[in-house]
Amino acid sequence: MAEHSLWRFSRALHSAIKERQPEVLETLIDDDVDWVIHGPIELFPFLGARRGKATVLKVCWQISENVRVHRFDRESVMLGEDTAASMMRYSLTALDSNKPINLRLAHFAQFKADRLLNIRVLLDTYELVEQSLGHPIRPPKIGS
Amino acid sequence: MAEHSLWRFSRALHSAIKERQPEVLETLIDDDVDWVIHGPIELFPFLGARRGKATVLKVCWQISENVRVHRFDRESVMLGEDTAASMMRYSLTALDSNKPINLRLAHFAQFKADRLLNIRVLLDTYELVEQSLGHPIRPPKIGS
Repeated sequence: MAEHSLWRFSRALHSAIKERQPEVLETLIDDDVDWVIHGPIELFPFLGARRGKATVLKVCWQISENVRVHRFDRESVMLGEDTAASMMRYSLTALDSNKPINLRLAHFAQFKADRLLNIRVLLDTYELVEQSLGHPIRPPKIGS
Repeated sequence: MAEHSLWRFSRALHSAIKERQPEVLETLIDDDVDWVIHGPIELFPFLGARRGKATVLKVCWQISENVRVHRFDRESVMLGEDTAASMMRYSLTALDSNKPINLRLAHFAQFKADRLLNIRVLLDTYELVEQSLGHPIRPPKIGS
């Protein structure tokens, strides 16, 4: 059985971020890719929706300029023929502040001919924001 | 083909929350269920880890006491034989403050003999907290 597209894409993405070489993703992204990282784009401009390979390569570059990935653990994973979903836990450093950030994300991805066609990512941005602030947000408690 | 366990569980869960009758989930949850909603449990005590059917039924009751679900849309879904993952968008009201809350979540679920055995849920809690506060959190902007 051939390797699932997810594993190849994941290796290339992490390498692209680590080495700041988004071009290693060139052959793994569909020309018309539909890419969304849900989150507060007014705070983190590299989140949000992107369409098309060139735009997505650019955002991968922006991510590599902003974070260093120390470690990730894939806590849940589901693989379909051309689809994949995971829940992952990341240990990062925000490069501008040198602050450690731990966050969890979930993604749903669709591939076509081994290239990423569609991805939706959900970040635990509360934690991200709190850790960027460096102190708890402390809103009122809800529920009993 | 029999209906996937996800659909039956989802209908029962939403009905349990709407009608405040968690007992409708009684036959759809494994005695030893492993349940986690990742999020700031210090702010939302009905989030976090729960183990065992009685404890999970209790937390479903707490959720039903705290929110009203107006609408949900399943934006992504993957189904395996005994597994399911979705990304969903919810429109809720927080019952104590009567505030509208829109949030996105992702879940990974595992079933055994049509009963929920394991579930991991990731909430977009930043949005949840911001909407509970009633104003933006406004942390410093990160990235360029």
